[in-house]
Amino acid sequence: MTTNRRVILSSRSKGVPQADHFTVEDAAIPTLSTGQFLIKMSYWSIDPAMRGWANDAPNYLPPVEIGAAMRSFAVGEVVDSKHPDYAVGEVVTGMFGWNSYAVSDGSNVDRKVAETDLSPSLALGVLGLNGVTAYYGLLDVCDPKPGETVVVSTAAGSVGSAVGQIAKIKGARTVGITSSEEKMALCRDEFGYDEVISYRQDDLAGALKAAAPDGFDCYFDNTCGEISDAVFTNLALGARICICGTASLTDWDPIPVGPRVHRQLLVARARLQGFLVLDYRDRYGPAIAALANWIRDGRLTYQEHVLDGAEAAPGAIDLLYRGGNRGKLIVVV
Amino acid sequence: MTTNRRVILSSRSKGVPQADHFTVEDAAIPTLSTGQFLIKMSYWSIDPAMRGWANDAPNYLPPVEIGAAMRSFAVGEVVDSKHPDYAVGEVVTGMFGWNSYAVSDGSNVDRKVAETDLSPSLALGVLGLNGVTAYYGLLDVCDPKPGETVVVSTAAGSVGSAVGQIAKIKGARTVGITSSEEKMALCRDEFGYDEVISYRQDDLAGALKAAAPDGFDCYFDNTCGEISDAVFTNLALGARICICGTASLTDWDPIPVGPRVHRQLLVARARLQGFLVLDYRDRYGPAIAALANWIRDGRLTYQEHVLDGAEAAPGAIDLLYRGGNRGKLIVVV
Repeated sequence: MTTNRRVILSSRSKGVPQADHFTVEDAAIPTLSTGQFLIKMSYWSIDPAMRGWANDAPNYLPPVEIGAAMRSFAVGEVVDSKHPDYAVGEVVTGMFGWNSYAVSDGSNVDRKVAETDLSPSLALGVLGLNGVTAYYGLLDVCDPKPGETVVVSTAAGSVGSAVGQIAKIKGARTVGITSSEEKMALCRDEFGYDEVISYRQDDLAGALKAAAPDGFDCYFDNTCGEISDAVFTNLALGARICICGTASLTDWDPIPVGPRVHRQLLVARARLQGFLVLDYRDRYGPAIAALANWIRDGRLTYQEHVLDGAEAAPGAIDLLYRGGNRGKLIVVV
Repeated sequence: MTTNRRVILSSRSKGVPQADHFTVEDAAIPTLSTGQFLIKMSYWSIDPAMRGWANDAPNYLPPVEIGAAMRSFAVGEVVDSKHPDYAVGEVVTGMFGWNSYAVSDGSNVDRKVAETDLSPSLALGVLGLNGVTAYYGLLDVCDPKPGETVVVSTAAGSVGSAVGQIAKIKGARTVGITSSEEKMALCRDEFGYDEVISYRQDDLAGALKAAAPDGFDCYFDNTCGEISDAVFTNLALGARICICGTASLTDWDPIPVGPRVHRQLLVARARLQGFLVLDYRDRYGPAIAALANWIRDGRLTYQEHVLDGAEAAPGAIDLLYRGGNRGKLIVVV
């Protein structure tokens, strides 16, 4: 009998959840009721937001309950259906959690995957929330103009690399901030950044100033913390900053202290704005269509880092926060 | 012979300039050249921005030079003219500095004062940059909708009191943050705030939460610092925050530390934006016309605090920062 291999949150973490906060187990697959369908999962997604979901701190979604399958985006194929809108063989992506088989009534489906000429795993990355995050965070919040300079933190990451490439497509000059020599080379050679800077240096602010003497018009921020502090010393007049994530600071209870940004924002008449892709739920379609076309045209590239099997999932969030992945981190189920 | 009584910046301050950083002196009035006119000043304006102008720190204008008349907005009457566009008897306002008589070529004139049915001193306050700051900072940056809740720091001040009243005119609910019982009564009785809170209490965040259980949709921030920190704990989804001033923190070199705002902005998908009224130079007219009409209709009220003569000017900026004024602080020349 087929069972659902799932990974549950077994204890609460304060910072980044570690492997021992999770338990892998097998559970029975419920019989389908009318209006339900069964998804056989292909891939689970590992995303920075999962830290927040596992913690018991104020967030835009309630925390995952202890004993429940970890909340996660996933992609899979419909293998049985008593739902009129979902047919066997269709590929769907949504918040199905760390389950190898999941029963859905459609409410947790984000979309049917239509771009069947491309790998279904892309629905979790560059054609999923990462790509859509890059698309709307950059184009709606930062709104770069041709000739402006855009700086991206975690420039080689699955969101950041798309941001950098979309900014180039829109005619901006791009500066990428990343860590290792390996990722710097990736940023230059694969993602086409005009300038690449490692944050592992004594004078990051000086390096940023040298890379953009007139200041940054747009900043797509995935990190907060000291990297962000350095960028804030070099804002152009009218700068637009998208807060997409705060990956460099793992604990927000109590709120960490840092340089107050108000005066820098005032002097530059700059705008600092929080962005959550889930607010754009009704507008995913046009972004995915644009991204898929750029992939087909060879203007947008991506990297995937695939972990093997449910047993690899518990340590995956920590791997992500330690920067151990090379590209969008996914688990093949 | 008439002389120009002026107040010069005689030494550099680090924080708020004190009386002994200035010297009162008499200087000759130059003979007018073609294209110039002479203004006999009626009032000088005392504004928070003057601290920044006196300091040698990065700002949106270069610092005032030692030995020069202090930079200041002022209003006065044209008493002699060799300029085709300025006639004797016209009232003008602009950045004429702490001079009792100033020669101008028109380049430092903000506008001719047309609303001659109202006191010319209003051109330095509610019909000057304070009123226009309130108007555009609130309506352009915060953009309050009817039924939303707007919180204002320095609610009884010359900018804040106008912000609160304009927000009410636009159909919002208003919460004012101020200091003393006297100012609280002023906020309630004169400026019509729905709720008034003193920041001089142990649990400001709790009081703010009680005043707006669903959070603040708009925050017009004149203070930064601990007041702002408390407001940030109670942001509504999609909140818009206008950084107009940072009056509670007098020293920005080095940048003071405080709670990092990024996560709060991200969770609320809120927007924090720096505002400088000088960017709206081309749009002062419509704002002043609207403000003057609200004054004539009795929907917008204001207070003035008048100091007597040039000798009162050197201590005036410190008086403003100590909160010793009751209404828009001006010097009658």
